[in-house]
Amino acid sequence: MTQALDYLRSNRDRYITELVEYVRFPSVSAQSQHAPDMRKCAEWLRGKCERAGLEATIEDTSGNAVVLARTPRRPGKRPHFVVYGHYDVQPPEPLELWKTPPFEGRVEGSNLYGRGASDNKGQHLAHINAVEAFLKTNTELPCDLTFLIEGEEEVGSKGLPGFLKARKRDLKCDAVVISDTGMPAKTMPALTYALRGIFAFEIIVHGPNRDLHSGIFGGNVDNPAMVLSQLLAQLRDKKGRITIPGVYDDVAPLSRYERKEMARVPLEERSYKKFLGVPELFGEHGFTYSEQRSARPTLEINGLTSGYQGEGSKTIIPSWARAKITMRLVPNQDPEKIRKLVFAHLKKICPPTVRLELIGGHGGEPYLVSPDGPQAQAALRALEKAFKKPPVAMREGGSIPIVVDFKRQLGADVLLLGLALPDDNAHSPNEKFDLDIFAKGMEMAVHLWPGLTAATK
Amino acid sequence: MTQALDYLRSNRDRYITELVEYVRFPSVSAQSQHAPDMRKCAEWLRGKCERAGLEATIEDTSGNAVVLARTPRRPGKRPHFVVYGHYDVQPPEPLELWKTPPFEGRVEGSNLYGRGASDNKGQHLAHINAVEAFLKTNTELPCDLTFLIEGEEEVGSKGLPGFLKARKRDLKCDAVVISDTGMPAKTMPALTYALRGIFAFEIIVHGPNRDLHSGIFGGNVDNPAMVLSQLLAQLRDKKGRITIPGVYDDVAPLSRYERKEMARVPLEERSYKKFLGVPELFGEHGFTYSEQRSARPTLEINGLTSGYQGEGSKTIIPSWARAKITMRLVPNQDPEKIRKLVFAHLKKICPPTVRLELIGGHGGEPYLVSPDGPQAQAALRALEKAFKKPPVAMREGGSIPIVVDFKRQLGADVLLLGLALPDDNAHSPNEKFDLDIFAKGMEMAVHLWPGLTAATK
Repeated sequence: MTQALDYLRSNRDRYITELVEYVRFPSVSAQSQHAPDMRKCAEWLRGKCERAGLEATIEDTSGNAVVLARTPRRPGKRPHFVVYGHYDVQPPEPLELWKTPPFEGRVEGSNLYGRGASDNKGQHLAHINAVEAFLKTNTELPCDLTFLIEGEEEVGSKGLPGFLKARKRDLKCDAVVISDTGMPAKTMPALTYALRGIFAFEIIVHGPNRDLHSGIFGGNVDNPAMVLSQLLAQLRDKKGRITIPGVYDDVAPLSRYERKEMARVPLEERSYKKFLGVPELFGEHGFTYSEQRSARPTLEINGLTSGYQGEGSKTIIPSWARAKITMRLVPNQDPEKIRKLVFAHLKKICPPTVRLELIGGHGGEPYLVSPDGPQAQAALRALEKAFKKPPVAMREGGSIPIVVDFKRQLGADVLLLGLALPDDNAHSPNEKFDLDIFAKGMEMAVHLWPGLTAATK
Repeated sequence: MTQALDYLRSNRDRYITELVEYVRFPSVSAQSQHAPDMRKCAEWLRGKCERAGLEATIEDTSGNAVVLARTPRRPGKRPHFVVYGHYDVQPPEPLELWKTPPFEGRVEGSNLYGRGASDNKGQHLAHINAVEAFLKTNTELPCDLTFLIEGEEEVGSKGLPGFLKARKRDLKCDAVVISDTGMPAKTMPALTYALRGIFAFEIIVHGPNRDLHSGIFGGNVDNPAMVLSQLLAQLRDKKGRITIPGVYDDVAPLSRYERKEMARVPLEERSYKKFLGVPELFGEHGFTYSEQRSARPTLEINGLTSGYQGEGSKTIIPSWARAKITMRLVPNQDPEKIRKLVFAHLKKICPPTVRLELIGGHGGEPYLVSPDGPQAQAALRALEKAFKKPPVAMREGGSIPIVVDFKRQLGADVLLLGLALPDDNAHSPNEKFDLDIFAKGMEMAVHLWPGLTAATK
């Protein structure tokens, strides 16, 4: 083990250079003009895996390609684990808020800035580098590994379930390891045992067949932007509760044990407010901040578009108005059931003066697994060895829809060993990844495989 | 008179060609990149006025330049009238909804398509052409005329009041004539005796200091787009009434006579709905469609902007959300008083979880004059002579803020002889001007000056 750990340390600079290279690909899955960049990024990753000593291929799916990389096949039977990550990234907009270009890959102090550095390129590269250390130092790797790095996580992983189903036999495994979640602080490593699900949709309110002069026609037709505002205003109350009937019906209540564990996650209100830049925090009444952001459903407007948005004013009644919305779901809410409830409610409250268009986007189920099992305990020990701090078992507010598919298709539990810090600006301008965490993440991944293998046998 | 009318008819083709030239200038006052086009447009207009036999100059104001053009100075005292118009136009966006480019100036059938064709280039050009007919045929013009064509009407005429004040002596007159309003139908010419005022403003709701990951932080901070929606939803109720306390306090009630006159304006609900493309009409309960759109205040959202508006979805809590709003005001509402009421209400209902920014834009007072005076009657007769149909005296829903300034600075009543048809698409894509109305408008302007002079002496 010492040899593998030494190898990691002596190659640290090269690993940083490689991560910079990787971040430079604008692999934005939501924007179709980046399709060629997606492909180039996948090619780069395959090359990296091959140089690390893995057998790597680019596999087509119904959507963006998946990069598959396996440890060399050896005789004998050993546990097989899948490491999952994604090479696609969120759109970088708004560009003007980035201090330096989002795809430049700038190192400043112990941080590497760039879209995708933390979410998720840096995190899965740490795992690949750890396996490289095993292979290049001839350290005994007691298990077989397959890296599955996909290109559609940020747009709902549409192609992956079909791919998992088709390749079920190759990918059958004893656990899936994912580093795509967060840790509460640099000194508090974490195993995440629950994730929120998601349901994305759009509301488009259609009014007059063109923008109308607000003087000539104003007073005779309903305003689509006003109708949209009134619909949206009826989706959440002043106590932070979603007001769509039935939405809370399937929410599993929090156990006393969970609420106690959640209280361990540090959160200092004043500095948190300052960090977010808000005058007051706001969430569902009756729950702590940690509970609100990880164990309770939310409904967020992600974008609004209507009428004239340019300089100055334009005196019109806009022809249409649109809102992009995502809901975060918690165990045991079902995205399809939620979709039905939301759409039925919107249809019910929409006035007859406009035409309502509802577009259902991607959905993902929430995930919950007990942190008491031997594999979870092995993961917690690997974290403790690398970080030299007691890890916490926590829920997280984000969504990794594919986690549910892994459970369903491969029958394996998913271990979430997140390496993102709260100030990594994932999905925001100036995303960054902490290079000390990058190094500790590699060490954790070295400790993980022997322990996890022992826990599995 | 016959000679002048014959002159108009024999020059009809040239007049159309000139109007096409004029429409081709993208003189968009709201967009600063069009400043050079504004200047070129003013230069063209000065040239046109000079060719018509007028003495024309371009006059600087604190904003965009004004084109002034006078009939040649003659000895002796006669009434002086000012003809007002504006060479600036609304922004052409959304461009993709135009059948042909907005500044091409395309003639199809009896219509000329192009931004500004109806609002207002075609309408004031009709007046200039009518005076050209007097001057080129040596027909006795019994009055002095000054054309005042400004370049900031679509952005609130900020420079004009100062200009009027500074040039009060030159511009002192016995009436101001404006063709910048509408007529109910091709066969129903109209004198407009009242206009709505306007108050434009913007609401910006500031939340977190950057777009936030809706999974990691969703549940802990208020969503600026949701707060904006909830604020907007509280500005108008389901009966079409503005819910800002005090807003209706100064609204002058409609007299029985006015309601009766207004009922003459034709409006067939089914075809009106079809024309606008809405499933149902909507307006303030208790008022007819004509009343709603001309004699009652309105509050319209003109534009909404927040967060991610591109392809696909982006799972964020946006940092801010903005609405552009205009209110139409009626006699005797005061824009400044309304501004105070609106801003106080918004501040009161805004939650402490966000920072509220309110930006007051341009304001304009409503206008009301009695249609019984001799000048108004002369104007009605000129309409009848040209159109060969009984004209209607009506209110109009649009705003020409400068009308109030004319009354105040020059002490003159304003006669509104509008030539825009309801389907001219003013402020909308595919704006057009009816060339038959263009011709009748020129004839009306020939009949106007002798009658108006007689009514003034």
